[in-house]
Amino acid sequence: MSLLDYFKISKASSAVLAKERLQILVAHERSSRNQPSYLPQLQKELLEVVRKYINVGQDAISVNFEQDDEQETLELNIVLPDIHAKNS
Amino acid sequence: MSLLDYFKISKASSAVLAKERLQILVAHERSSRNQPSYLPQLQKELLEVVRKYINVGQDAISVNFEQDDEQETLELNIVLPDIHAKNS
Repeated sequence: MSLLDYFKISKASSAVLAKERLQILVAHERSSRNQPSYLPQLQKELLEVVRKYINVGQDAISVNFEQDDEQETLELNIVLPDIHAKNS
Repeated sequence: MSLLDYFKISKASSAVLAKERLQILVAHERSSRNQPSYLPQLQKELLEVVRKYINVGQDAISVNFEQDDEQETLELNIVLPDIHAKNS
């Protein structure tokens, strides 16, 4: 299954929601655990970039960060404000 | 299946590769098709942020962009240079 297939399944299951959503995922496979993680700082900067395009408050953003021996995964889920769809 | 599960499966299947990888996915569910997409510009800015943390050339980055009636999906796959793992 490709990653794009995953999003298609995810989309179908959330189709009842009228809200627009933006989802950002970052996965970092690491060959060494000796390096400090830069994902927390990267997360901050990614959100700054996103905020240039959409006007969302902190309460519209949920963050999930997981880490194991070989991989770090950062998931940002952003519910876009209704005003964003005012042209529809 | 959660998105994090997807990454775990993906990781297992690529475990034979010693290279470090960074994968960034952006999915935008749109309630209206009247708005111009900002994902191409967002993609450019995301890569500028990533380049602050890792030194990669354009040839290490592959981009996949898909669009249908309700969703746009942007996938960035970045193979990290070996020098990045010199501390291991």
